[in-house]
Amino acid sequence: MILDKINMPQDLKTLSADELNKLADEMRALIIKKANTIGGHLGPNLGIIEATIAMHYVFNCPEDKIVFDVSHQCYPHKILTGRKEGFLNPENYLKYTGYTAPEESVCDLFKVGHTSTSVSLAAGVAKARDLAGSKENVIAIIGDGSLSGGEAYEGLNNAAVLNSNIIIVVNDNDMSIAENQGGLYKNLELLRNTNGKAENNFFKTLGFEYFYEGEGNNIERMIKAFKKVKDTKCPTVLHIKTIKGLGLADADKNREIYHWILPGTLDKKPEISSAAPVEDYNTITKDFILNKAKSDPSIIAINPATPGVFGFNKDFRKQMGQQYTDVAISEEHAVAYASALAKCGAKPILCIMSSFIQRTYDQLSQDLCLNNSPATLLVYWGAISGADCTHLGCFDIPLISNIPNMVYLAPTCKEEYLSMLEWSAEQSDYPVAIRVPFGKFVTTGVKDETDYSILNLFKITQSGENIAIIGVGNFYHLALDAAAAIETKLGFKPTVINPGFLTGLDTECLETLKKNHNIVITLEDGVLDGGFGEKISRYYGSSDMKVLNFGAKKDFTDRIPVEELYQRYHLTPELILEDIENIMPARV
Amino acid sequence: MILDKINMPQDLKTLSADELNKLADEMRALIIKKANTIGGHLGPNLGIIEATIAMHYVFNCPEDKIVFDVSHQCYPHKILTGRKEGFLNPENYLKYTGYTAPEESVCDLFKVGHTSTSVSLAAGVAKARDLAGSKENVIAIIGDGSLSGGEAYEGLNNAAVLNSNIIIVVNDNDMSIAENQGGLYKNLELLRNTNGKAENNFFKTLGFEYFYEGEGNNIERMIKAFKKVKDTKCPTVLHIKTIKGLGLADADKNREIYHWILPGTLDKKPEISSAAPVEDYNTITKDFILNKAKSDPSIIAINPATPGVFGFNKDFRKQMGQQYTDVAISEEHAVAYASALAKCGAKPILCIMSSFIQRTYDQLSQDLCLNNSPATLLVYWGAISGADCTHLGCFDIPLISNIPNMVYLAPTCKEEYLSMLEWSAEQSDYPVAIRVPFGKFVTTGVKDETDYSILNLFKITQSGENIAIIGVGNFYHLALDAAAAIETKLGFKPTVINPGFLTGLDTECLETLKKNHNIVITLEDGVLDGGFGEKISRYYGSSDMKVLNFGAKKDFTDRIPVEELYQRYHLTPELILEDIENIMPARV
Repeated sequence: MILDKINMPQDLKTLSADELNKLADEMRALIIKKANTIGGHLGPNLGIIEATIAMHYVFNCPEDKIVFDVSHQCYPHKILTGRKEGFLNPENYLKYTGYTAPEESVCDLFKVGHTSTSVSLAAGVAKARDLAGSKENVIAIIGDGSLSGGEAYEGLNNAAVLNSNIIIVVNDNDMSIAENQGGLYKNLELLRNTNGKAENNFFKTLGFEYFYEGEGNNIERMIKAFKKVKDTKCPTVLHIKTIKGLGLADADKNREIYHWILPGTLDKKPEISSAAPVEDYNTITKDFILNKAKSDPSIIAINPATPGVFGFNKDFRKQMGQQYTDVAISEEHAVAYASALAKCGAKPILCIMSSFIQRTYDQLSQDLCLNNSPATLLVYWGAISGADCTHLGCFDIPLISNIPNMVYLAPTCKEEYLSMLEWSAEQSDYPVAIRVPFGKFVTTGVKDETDYSILNLFKITQSGENIAIIGVGNFYHLALDAAAAIETKLGFKPTVINPGFLTGLDTECLETLKKNHNIVITLEDGVLDGGFGEKISRYYGSSDMKVLNFGAKKDFTDRIPVEELYQRYHLTPELILEDIENIMPARV
Repeated sequence: MILDKINMPQDLKTLSADELNKLADEMRALIIKKANTIGGHLGPNLGIIEATIAMHYVFNCPEDKIVFDVSHQCYPHKILTGRKEGFLNPENYLKYTGYTAPEESVCDLFKVGHTSTSVSLAAGVAKARDLAGSKENVIAIIGDGSLSGGEAYEGLNNAAVLNSNIIIVVNDNDMSIAENQGGLYKNLELLRNTNGKAENNFFKTLGFEYFYEGEGNNIERMIKAFKKVKDTKCPTVLHIKTIKGLGLADADKNREIYHWILPGTLDKKPEISSAAPVEDYNTITKDFILNKAKSDPSIIAINPATPGVFGFNKDFRKQMGQQYTDVAISEEHAVAYASALAKCGAKPILCIMSSFIQRTYDQLSQDLCLNNSPATLLVYWGAISGADCTHLGCFDIPLISNIPNMVYLAPTCKEEYLSMLEWSAEQSDYPVAIRVPFGKFVTTGVKDETDYSILNLFKITQSGENIAIIGVGNFYHLALDAAAAIETKLGFKPTVINPGFLTGLDTECLETLKKNHNIVITLEDGVLDGGFGEKISRYYGSSDMKVLNFGAKKDFTDRIPVEELYQRYHLTPELILEDIENIMPARV
């Protein structure tokens, strides 16, 4: 195996052209096998193997500095920079994260998992080099999909005037996660079609020196291309055309499906399953939107480049037609666009993941909430999870719920969720975000008739005494379990409350609790700092009520199994009970 | 007066060319007089008078929809859309806000005060129109300075593929707030120099139909230009060249100074004062940076397009040379760039206003804090204030302090501030933000020798009993006043604490308080929700300690005098005392 000889990038430099090509084959096989075993970003990584080999052949990493955008394309880089064991041996598959990580290798500068950041980061790296008076190359590698993000553009606009060495490698495979969206992509197409010769050139308008290489999967050509830009004295773009999923028989036809795959995907034929889909929060959301859109042309579903996450498959998009917009990786635009649609009488439903709504704080504040636009935002994957540190979904409650005018709802089951969705879509008074339940699909079978226009009305679902448990959204079910544990162990029935609203308190309900309760506990599936529970603590601060807030610690956890986090944060009925007993007076 | 005849835009349509020009003169005089009386955005508004008249002459507002970016250019529009009394009569000068405001006129669609939002908003307006099947024109007016913001680019990229009517008016006066920065501006210059004919055209690369008008201050030419694009069926850019500050004798030479002026500015000669500047938080920051930069080439000051706010005048910029970057209106880039600089050994100091750091939540989280980069961020104007609802500075504590790894510091005086600044610039362990004191300049004359590397160590500055007052940053002085009031009225000395850190609790200090205190109060100069005080409430939730949190309500207040807000939120010693007495046991 050629790979046996490669421990760090400099080991590439003595290989022949043949050996480099064989190495690419070996790496391709390893990446396919690993992704099909544990899941991962398959398509983008297969497309960038040759360019990565050529890059490390030409440049001198770690002296030369490489910044990968969003890291969807960093597997080949990882193999060549001391981490091949994570690909060779299935026992080590989980040893390295799927993203760049400085703690793994001196060849990684940053932890990166959100898109469109590489150019800004590289600009900082280059400027630090200039201030220190050194001369190494600084390279940002950005996929075409990431180019639609505002941060990438801000970075390009600034990198272009650095007046020194910075090389932006634009890996253009004519795909974002799904199809590319937006005007820029026509220019990339024009550039590909003219072999980079077209006069009207996005990168040139920003002031970059520009090079094009149409055969981005040809190692020898890529070596030449990199040699051409190496040690450039000015901001330079190297635009390369690669094939996403190269090496998979049908990857070209199924590029979206192969962007990120689940274990075993390659062993099945994708998209041929005829079984009715199992009902879950995705399917009911999709059905809700489709049904509503059919009878109401003002309904419009919006998402920023991740339709697959929401189950918005090709059939859905086709049925929605003009009532669907994928805004590309443009979360800020998505929120402003939704706000304006709502302000002008349409009924936008913007679907976005908790981790990525972080990109829109100011748009939520200024474009949406300050204007009190009645748009609906569906926040997916908001929960404490075992995710990579770059994709945590536990910060959305502090992010969203402290913005004035916003109504943030936390449903606990199918019926509540659909009822909130229906109310939100039809009302015209508030910006509304709904934290789509995460985890087990729960259905009560009983239609939820709540009038959500009466804001901040908590639901007391079990009346009891001494202790009240407020279980937010996903954790309402934990509240029920904790209540049962309390009843068994302590011999009385505690009160259980489903607050529903995260953006305001039901002060009447909270006052009433004072009569026959002396402990209130809050359970939220997210970080405690700035969250819901603290507001309950503040409310009762001047009273005799004891309050215990349960939730996550403020921390960037990294692939810690969720069960372990639940133990750590005392998020099990048993541990909750223990904590309660610790603060209980001898007799409640 | 021609203006007598104009109440709404349609009244323009019967005027002759002569009358339109006279109207422009009248409006110019009114805007100059008003800005020189109460302050305001003078330069940008003077530049857009003729284009605004022409626009309203050609289009039919409010049927046709106009979205102003950041609203720095909306005074002429306000005069023509039912609000001239706010300019004619000095008594009405404060009647209307300086930004677009739907509650003032049907011709305003959105409240806008942050930049770069107009294209996204207009895209939503246009899409809502398309869904409703109507045909009116949708126009976004964006200044060249706002074009550097990522949200503007995301908007352009998406607007370009709308496939229907949307007109982006790019008002190019070759200036941002200060000089324009970034690669894009060279393309705008090329387009101006070629009368819009250059083949390499930023807007065309994104897919827009493109028109250029070099005489943007000529009403007749602008009428023709607008007629050309009116009722276009495709996304269209009308790029116009105007003169910022037109009509002021020396505005062209002093375009930065006249961007926004204080009352009376026109009566003085700007920048000729030879008096030594009064010491304030701006001057000491500037001196600190300059001194440090002289001996340390790795020091770099960064700001996003508002150098004037920080007192970074031309002399400062010149002295700093390569150790200064104005990244243009690109807050996201600014944070990522600072993070990378810090990661690579430089010592970046990023200056940014509280209201605008809102644009960077995800960059703070992912680019900066997840990477634990030891950059220094100085957050200016973080305070409860009488500002316009678009420029409130009271949300930064919840925004910043709930992000893991961040160290957010709140100094209370010159000496503490400088000591924190020195520590932050030299340490390499944490991302640090410092809330620059706002309001009265306080100096103790005693050097602060605190070792800030010991995180979360609160300072007990007055040891007392029964009641402890934690006064955060600016409000530490209110804490002292409240303590004095308590001592006078209640006859005992309360404890006073300056926490210094906003991102963690001194649990040892808080535990100790339990011994001889039964009430803790917190005072913070910002919104309570998600802020510092709630963390104290959470901490004491399960104990007998009573906690009262003082700060702002979660609300977009709009030009409410700060004294009124202090009354509303009980932020005076007397009202604090009252609230304490209300929860005190009969005998403390």
